[in-house]
Amino acid sequence: MTRHLLGIEGLSREAILEILERARACKEVLRRPMKKVGTLRGKMVVNLFFESSTRTRTSFEIAAKVLSADAINWTASGSSTSKGETLFDTAKNLEAMRPDAMVIRHGASGAPHLVAERVRCPVINAGDGAHEHPSQALLDAFILRERLGELEGRTVAIVGDIAHSRVARSNILCLAALGAKVRVCGPATLLPKGIEALGCTTTTSLAKALEGADAVMMLRIQLERIGDSRFPTTREYSKLYGLGLANAELLAPHALIMHPGPINRGVELAPEIADGPRSVILDQVENGVAVRMALLHQLIDPEAPLA
Amino acid sequence: MTRHLLGIEGLSREAILEILERARACKEVLRRPMKKVGTLRGKMVVNLFFESSTRTRTSFEIAAKVLSADAINWTASGSSTSKGETLFDTAKNLEAMRPDAMVIRHGASGAPHLVAERVRCPVINAGDGAHEHPSQALLDAFILRERLGELEGRTVAIVGDIAHSRVARSNILCLAALGAKVRVCGPATLLPKGIEALGCTTTTSLAKALEGADAVMMLRIQLERIGDSRFPTTREYSKLYGLGLANAELLAPHALIMHPGPINRGVELAPEIADGPRSVILDQVENGVAVRMALLHQLIDPEAPLA
Amino acid sequence: MTRHLLGIEGLSREAILEILERARACKEVLRRPMKKVGTLRGKMVVNLFFESSTRTRTSFEIAAKVLSADAINWTASGSSTSKGETLFDTAKNLEAMRPDAMVIRHGASGAPHLVAERVRCPVINAGDGAHEHPSQALLDAFILRERLGELEGRTVAIVGDIAHSRVARSNILCLAALGAKVRVCGPATLLPKGIEALGCTTTTSLAKALEGADAVMMLRIQLERIGDSRFPTTREYSKLYGLGLANAELLAPHALIMHPGPINRGVELAPEIADGPRSVILDQVENGVAVRMALLHQLIDPEAPLA
Repeated sequence: MTRHLLGIEGLSREAILEILERARACKEVLRRPMKKVGTLRGKMVVNLFFESSTRTRTSFEIAAKVLSADAINWTASGSSTSKGETLFDTAKNLEAMRPDAMVIRHGASGAPHLVAERVRCPVINAGDGAHEHPSQALLDAFILRERLGELEGRTVAIVGDIAHSRVARSNILCLAALGAKVRVCGPATLLPKGIEALGCTTTTSLAKALEGADAVMMLRIQLERIGDSRFPTTREYSKLYGLGLANAELLAPHALIMHPGPINRGVELAPEIADGPRSVILDQVENGVAVRMALLHQLIDPEAPLA
Repeated sequence: MTRHLLGIEGLSREAILEILERARACKEVLRRPMKKVGTLRGKMVVNLFFESSTRTRTSFEIAAKVLSADAINWTASGSSTSKGETLFDTAKNLEAMRPDAMVIRHGASGAPHLVAERVRCPVINAGDGAHEHPSQALLDAFILRERLGELEGRTVAIVGDIAHSRVARSNILCLAALGAKVRVCGPATLLPKGIEALGCTTTTSLAKALEGADAVMMLRIQLERIGDSRFPTTREYSKLYGLGLANAELLAPHALIMHPGPINRGVELAPEIADGPRSVILDQVENGVAVRMALLHQLIDPEAPLA
Repeated sequence: MTRHLLGIEGLSREAILEILERARACKEVLRRPMKKVGTLRGKMVVNLFFESSTRTRTSFEIAAKVLSADAINWTASGSSTSKGETLFDTAKNLEAMRPDAMVIRHGASGAPHLVAERVRCPVINAGDGAHEHPSQALLDAFILRERLGELEGRTVAIVGDIAHSRVARSNILCLAALGAKVRVCGPATLLPKGIEALGCTTTTSLAKALEGADAVMMLRIQLERIGDSRFPTTREYSKLYGLGLANAELLAPHALIMHPGPINRGVELAPEIADGPRSVILDQVENGVAVRMALLHQLIDPEAPLA
């Protein structure tokens, strides 16, 4: 694997499987009554978040602490970025405090890549604009493989606002690398032209996307986009692209129902489905911590024993 | 004791005394030059605060750290709750990250109870609406017993906006369980009908409330309520229900003067009284950390040695 | 050294050198792959910030954690100070939670001094109004001595809004105590009368200030002051008092270029200079952590081994 985790793009199947294998061991640690190993003792992880996301930040923070690393949270509000400091100056300043890894979320696509070129420590992209969110894709792959085995030939549907979704983009790349067939589905205005090049097929028909699929990932509607001319009303959206008890029947019987959270209940996902027996949404969250432990372990000190 | 601490309601005298006994040992740890024990090493406490309260959150955070637990702060602002996620989804998501206890403050009465029904880990109510704030009542009982001995037959006055005070409610229940006589006092509009059923007497006369009492708890006026038709002006309130040098003379000579903080100096409490020799307000704060250590210890791993 | 670090004022040359010597050892720890020593295990440092400063707070937080102390962040927003609690009540409340040191930043000059008079634990001033910012001056002295050796007879220019700069004030005092010649420079309206008494000369000519100097400290322009009648426009300021490639030639060839950050690139400092070979701006940040480790070590438990 590379020095950083900036995206799924460019990761080989082997590199992905190496992380997932490591995550399996991390998950075992996380389930112990005493969930603390000395693996990264004396290491420091900085969470540098320019967009608010308590959920992802907390997942990285817990991952660091379980491994005995120190976690420092640096959020843009109330920081020197509000005094007009640039992304680079912030990153270089943080680097000077000698962290062992930086976890970056930023509203601009490519921001973590630009930082990675200029700092010595590993950089993990925790979401950049509409570009990539690789740790999300890895945790999704983790649970898919845990439940379904090898993904070669399996079918996964991704439904929603594909155009603006870094989750969709990273998942397409990751699933394709693992040999799965990926169907992306959404309103025509939200299906970017040429997305098939990432390794998926597209459809505007939810029924076609769901038909016999082994898993479906329902994307979160960005409610702030409602009103955008390319976007239908919430009610229309829900009717055409929401997953409910009826259309969930189209999936394979063993299918997993996934969502990166937070859910808009009753919009993209009916509550009965979100809380139903096939939903693995909360397992995704748990696996998120395990996958992030694996990433920190691998990028900071991969030979350190997980003990 | 039960699995959760959701309120004083339902706690037996024995359960209360067990926590207070444990808090005594915790306070001794807190006073050491090296205040760190390995009791909860490898455990994780999440502070889930939907209302801002640096003071209470910090008290729980310190309590966790002294016991070697990891503390994760999750505040509603900047979190997925601002993206419209429900209380339950937030709680279930956090639970999936495998915390060993959740400390919840929420503006709605009963919110921690609803969460407790749905998660596996212990839940501690750190204040829910106008309902309960049990750790405050326990720390108040702790100091009363430390200074006065057994509370059987002792008289404690609680003065202020009883109707909107979770501190009052939890204290009435706790003091009644320990055998104290509780007098609650405030403007008639702020004395809820039927409150006597919790185990107290009521009066609108501050003088009668204070007369010979062994302790008085002055409640914080919620300045944001001023202007409410049921509420007097600050000046009127202060004149009728503020504690000053003159009316403090009505208390027993050994009486303790208490306040849950933060104080509105010169409104419910004269500065000379707040800082005077009978005030135990800052001791309450210190005991707060000890009591919260006891709660975390008891609910997470009561048999773990405090060492 | 005294019990607190409230300012450079009153510190002897010996006291300053003692801290810098300790910082040298701390910097060595900070550069280890495993940067954690047990020195302050079981100690608790509270960062009490009434002005936002992620950078300085993070520096203290990292310093505490490398020394194995627990760090608690208490920021004014969202805390009981927004409920109208006074500085003293906040400080006394925090003290009751038994911290081993309080690091205070406040907008009012003298605030940390007032707190220090009333609490038992050591207080470190992390910036008070336009008064002092002693840890900044110490880290600046650290790097100057690291690069230039003894400062006796060396010349340091400080350029910018001297009147409103706590960084300038602390640096003048610190450099004077170490025997350096200090030239302060800025528009006449921003050069306070009588500042020479601190141990410096003044000039409104940038060229004169830079001429042959061994180091220059460019102060950050407070952009919020632009529009103030005493303040020139940004363009005027930059033209007269900004450091660029041309006037940087006036400095001694070995001169250090310093800035406390965050930089307004293109205003007080040209990007080519900020990122150029003579800039030690990022080294200042690293040394900041080392100096803050030294301060915590010295004030909390100076005899504890750094191991």
